[in-house]
Amino acid sequence: MAGNTFGEMFKITTFGESHGAAVGVVVDGVTPGVEMDEAYIQIQMDRRKPGQSSVTSPRKEYDVVRILSGVFEGKTTGTPLFVILHNHDMRPEAYNEIQHYFRPGHADFTYLQKYGFRDYRGSGRASGRETAARVAGGAVARKLLEKRGVQVLAYTKEIGGIACRSFEEQAIEQNAVRACDPAAATEMIKKVEHLAAVGDSCGGIVECRIRGVIPGLGEPVFDKLDAELAKAMLSIGSVKGIEFGSGFAAASMLGSEHNDEMSAAVVFLTNHSGGMIGGISTGQEIIFRVAVKPTSSISIPQQTINITGEDQQIRIEGRHDPCICPRIVPVVEAMACLVLEDQYKRQAAMLG
Amino acid sequence: MAGNTFGEMFKITTFGESHGAAVGVVVDGVTPGVEMDEAYIQIQMDRRKPGQSSVTSPRKEYDVVRILSGVFEGKTTGTPLFVILHNHDMRPEAYNEIQHYFRPGHADFTYLQKYGFRDYRGSGRASGRETAARVAGGAVARKLLEKRGVQVLAYTKEIGGIACRSFEEQAIEQNAVRACDPAAATEMIKKVEHLAAVGDSCGGIVECRIRGVIPGLGEPVFDKLDAELAKAMLSIGSVKGIEFGSGFAAASMLGSEHNDEMSAAVVFLTNHSGGMIGGISTGQEIIFRVAVKPTSSISIPQQTINITGEDQQIRIEGRHDPCICPRIVPVVEAMACLVLEDQYKRQAAMLG
Amino acid sequence: MAGNTFGEMFKITTFGESHGAAVGVVVDGVTPGVEMDEAYIQIQMDRRKPGQSSVTSPRKEYDVVRILSGVFEGKTTGTPLFVILHNHDMRPEAYNEIQHYFRPGHADFTYLQKYGFRDYRGSGRASGRETAARVAGGAVARKLLEKRGVQVLAYTKEIGGIACRSFEEQAIEQNAVRACDPAAATEMIKKVEHLAAVGDSCGGIVECRIRGVIPGLGEPVFDKLDAELAKAMLSIGSVKGIEFGSGFAAASMLGSEHNDEMSAAVVFLTNHSGGMIGGISTGQEIIFRVAVKPTSSISIPQQTINITGEDQQIRIEGRHDPCICPRIVPVVEAMACLVLEDQYKRQAAMLG
Amino acid sequence: MAGNTFGEMFKITTFGESHGAAVGVVVDGVTPGVEMDEAYIQIQMDRRKPGQSSVTSPRKEYDVVRILSGVFEGKTTGTPLFVILHNHDMRPEAYNEIQHYFRPGHADFTYLQKYGFRDYRGSGRASGRETAARVAGGAVARKLLEKRGVQVLAYTKEIGGIACRSFEEQAIEQNAVRACDPAAATEMIKKVEHLAAVGDSCGGIVECRIRGVIPGLGEPVFDKLDAELAKAMLSIGSVKGIEFGSGFAAASMLGSEHNDEMSAAVVFLTNHSGGMIGGISTGQEIIFRVAVKPTSSISIPQQTINITGEDQQIRIEGRHDPCICPRIVPVVEAMACLVLEDQYKRQAAMLG
Repeated sequence: MAGNTFGEMFKITTFGESHGAAVGVVVDGVTPGVEMDEAYIQIQMDRRKPGQSSVTSPRKEYDVVRILSGVFEGKTTGTPLFVILHNHDMRPEAYNEIQHYFRPGHADFTYLQKYGFRDYRGSGRASGRETAARVAGGAVARKLLEKRGVQVLAYTKEIGGIACRSFEEQAIEQNAVRACDPAAATEMIKKVEHLAAVGDSCGGIVECRIRGVIPGLGEPVFDKLDAELAKAMLSIGSVKGIEFGSGFAAASMLGSEHNDEMSAAVVFLTNHSGGMIGGISTGQEIIFRVAVKPTSSISIPQQTINITGEDQQIRIEGRHDPCICPRIVPVVEAMACLVLEDQYKRQAAMLG
Repeated sequence: MAGNTFGEMFKITTFGESHGAAVGVVVDGVTPGVEMDEAYIQIQMDRRKPGQSSVTSPRKEYDVVRILSGVFEGKTTGTPLFVILHNHDMRPEAYNEIQHYFRPGHADFTYLQKYGFRDYRGSGRASGRETAARVAGGAVARKLLEKRGVQVLAYTKEIGGIACRSFEEQAIEQNAVRACDPAAATEMIKKVEHLAAVGDSCGGIVECRIRGVIPGLGEPVFDKLDAELAKAMLSIGSVKGIEFGSGFAAASMLGSEHNDEMSAAVVFLTNHSGGMIGGISTGQEIIFRVAVKPTSSISIPQQTINITGEDQQIRIEGRHDPCICPRIVPVVEAMACLVLEDQYKRQAAMLG
Repeated sequence: MAGNTFGEMFKITTFGESHGAAVGVVVDGVTPGVEMDEAYIQIQMDRRKPGQSSVTSPRKEYDVVRILSGVFEGKTTGTPLFVILHNHDMRPEAYNEIQHYFRPGHADFTYLQKYGFRDYRGSGRASGRETAARVAGGAVARKLLEKRGVQVLAYTKEIGGIACRSFEEQAIEQNAVRACDPAAATEMIKKVEHLAAVGDSCGGIVECRIRGVIPGLGEPVFDKLDAELAKAMLSIGSVKGIEFGSGFAAASMLGSEHNDEMSAAVVFLTNHSGGMIGGISTGQEIIFRVAVKPTSSISIPQQTINITGEDQQIRIEGRHDPCICPRIVPVVEAMACLVLEDQYKRQAAMLG
Repeated sequence: MAGNTFGEMFKITTFGESHGAAVGVVVDGVTPGVEMDEAYIQIQMDRRKPGQSSVTSPRKEYDVVRILSGVFEGKTTGTPLFVILHNHDMRPEAYNEIQHYFRPGHADFTYLQKYGFRDYRGSGRASGRETAARVAGGAVARKLLEKRGVQVLAYTKEIGGIACRSFEEQAIEQNAVRACDPAAATEMIKKVEHLAAVGDSCGGIVECRIRGVIPGLGEPVFDKLDAELAKAMLSIGSVKGIEFGSGFAAASMLGSEHNDEMSAAVVFLTNHSGGMIGGISTGQEIIFRVAVKPTSSISIPQQTINITGEDQQIRIEGRHDPCICPRIVPVVEAMACLVLEDQYKRQAAMLG
């Protein structure tokens, strides 16, 4: 297996299981001479961590960022930047039971099939814990993108069937579900709290907007910008789909409706394409949505089989997120940052 | 730019523009000693070519397959297998006009932005013509997958808002739109013919099922099977979204609904996951859908700008597909075959 | 197998066997907007082809360059540039005999071991014929390097134990062995003609100098400039070793002798390092030498085994090069050009 | 920059500077279910560390191996295995002076040229300290190779012009220079001690033998086994050349001498090729030699320039290795192990 590196010219390599000693990330291809410190990365880590509200897991992950290489006197050196996040609040004994059966919706069964062996403690490498390393690596990319004038913004668009009716950017980080509509957010929180109380969970939709991108990013024909973003997003554990611009709605539109006409005044009159045509950025806002499945860990009784293949009824206890959307928001942003910075560097190489 | 290679252990590299001399593909990583001939690949090429019915472009692409290396005495040698497809029926003069402006929905603007220069003849490298090389490469993968007992099947699920109500596998290749419901197919054809007559176009949804896959394929955490399939599909020109299993519907489901419970009798009681959990195949049928946008070339007048930035009204004449879904079906299959064969080889490497 | 692509940001993918229909190369990552034509590439092809003198094989390879994609109106487009070289003067029947045994020094045995199957006609993919595609791809890189002011020059330093005593650059392309000393060249030619007459062969040393390189190229810690050059050179069939600057002589030098001291006037007072320190170019001339083994095909009787494992005496007839050095010179240059252009693009990505 | 990952299917990514907090390695693609522990890796770390004898630096690097992921209950899980080595005995103040000038033979000048910025403490990323991470990663590969029956053995062949006259395998780890001839070792040690006393240094030659390799490893045409080994070895800081089998001596041999004839009894009668033909292993012992330059840090006065470009005389004080050969031996082995394990996995993928 060798699927733990992401990116071509700007790339991250991650390691770590949920109940091992640490997770971490090596960031390779960092532009030298850029100011970088632990505090900057810490901000993103804090957005991802559990225990922030009633709608997320009460589990504690302090995730104190430590940079062990690649920064000297407050600036990147161009050599690999390494961030380690030591694990805390591990209770591996809480997982003693789950080594004996497969939890529905979890990767227990598939990891055993793939490796013939698994670290069953809290899902091991398949745990959402793994995304902490992505967020740390993404924060490095975010810093470089800031200098390019690029802004990456994700937020909850829908949870449990409740959709945002407005887009109020300043509201996003002010509510526990990171929704772009504070009124909808209140309903969402109520719904999620109810589901948590009855031991169930729900999914949602996260939307992402990227602004300030130059036209010309993306590498046809296989490494198109949307193709790379799609891979990045589907590599996140709970994501089941992605759509760009009009997305699935484009399937029932006419060409005369969907085509983004152009004019001298504003370049593009509409943005059905989502900011990319032919896999290359147009310079408009890039916009996409991802479908997030309901959290697999629920305490409602479920039918499953144990590792010897026998039927078994289970109830999963523990400190789980009834809806993962608010915590997936910074992960979506991190992955988008990684793709963008890589594409900027690939464009520089092509012209360079 | 270096985005014209796809795959890790089984990989294709393609070249060619729509109105150049040829398109072609180098397939590297082919298992040696497997029977392979031009006729086998030709079958897939013929499924993709235009001019098959009233719903596709009347343009002729004969696409006579020629294997120039990598096969000896009817068997693969393990060295690069090269297929060339010479272009015919080129009428570059038909494109003289389009060098002066940007066609809405086309990559004219973005290619110029990226490269500072473009081959304007029939979209050049951004043309759907490029997918011919993918289908040839995918046919090689398909042959290897056949020996593994894997079957890849795509078909039209919806066109212009008309959805299939039944799944009749044997009907797919019997109707001009490759729909899985012959009754819906009749309606779809009627709609597409009407749109062609008025110079408009429409989009649709293509679904793909992959059967016979072993459990254990996919490379966490970034090269998950669904992540690789997502990249593969979004790299196809007209695709605007993808969803696996329940997909976007999962966003409004509860965990207790969405989790695929297990039983000793059938292993999984449902398949909301679409055949993958944690990015690894479960051994169930893999199922996903892609959203296809309406064809960009329409003869209805459109507003655009010319290359000097002035407003202009245009009408695109030519021999275009009013709906690309039936011709995208073999491309979706080809890309899925490429991903699957690559993942089989990566799994062999991991264990080997 | 997937070892037929070379380079990261500027890369070539080659295909083709010696007695198949063609060899060719896809060049991906070409800077757009650069003048390129078949005549420019043809010059390098002609330097490599056999039949140029008494010291090379009388076999004919016309190698007429045809660019089938990636160039439009005389300029590169940034999309894959494809060059095909059709094979001529194939006499596969001449190889009927060699399918039954393993020729000493040839890859007959190892290809069969690796693939369980081999294209025995003229060594198939293991033939020196494969290097024609490298030279075509290298010519594209050379063109880009010319615009950067970089010059890559290789020549014969030693053949059959006869070493050049002087370095006369203008003499190199004036003698049949491409030696940098015309007096030594005369002796070398005499020796090679004698060996050809008695059915034997000899090896030699080829030296390469690269001028005009900016300081800063090379990607520590694994993709150092010397590491990439070493891989490039050892990937050429007959090369058995490489040394940079002082090379193996450094093993018996003192630090006080070997260190290149620096001065304000000339930056470096000496160049024992060969133009790279820490795997990064210093801006000095890059200099390295490769050891070339004697051609394996000799008509003197040899002891070997046949494919069923029995002892056999053989004599290899045919039209072989008694010394491959003069024809390896353009291949060494081509590979060096590929490495350099790739490293320029990687440096642009790092800073970009 | 993105040159800190090595390998395709079995790969390592390293980070860390000599005077930062730690160096470390992520190993991706590890076969699951193999016994692995810190003690096994520690053995190789201890062979590399300084302070072992009078011929190495008295500097202390304890290099206590800590595995933080990828091993569960004493076995590899197939997920990334991470090893961290915390730095000790750092005296960055000892390097305050060197920030102002360029040390001859060191990468001070080239790192500044490349990155516009450098971590001057003890050479930063260009320090030999970086190889500790390679040795840790190589130990993981070595474990997997042991199970395949492959043995990798390196040793000093020559130091300061004194060459081994015999090959006594059991003597290698018994003498301070790791020479294969104990009598020569005594002379070498005397010479190195003398050079240390006068503040000078010397180079040498390290030879490596790999036994038990199956025939068929190596990926033509670019990723040949010898090409990959050459890149691996030249990526080590002090290495200036490599030769396989007869190597540079082949340049003055005849084809009738150099060809390895074959016989039914022993397969190959000789091994001039060094165990590879056409870049693929023959199944014989693989043998190569690398040229090691004299250590750059010497206390004899040297001429150089400072960072503002003015001439300056310097003397480098500190605790340096007068000859790096004995400590390069485990690094050569580690890199060879990494290449071999990767090639085994690539061969499995090709056939799988």
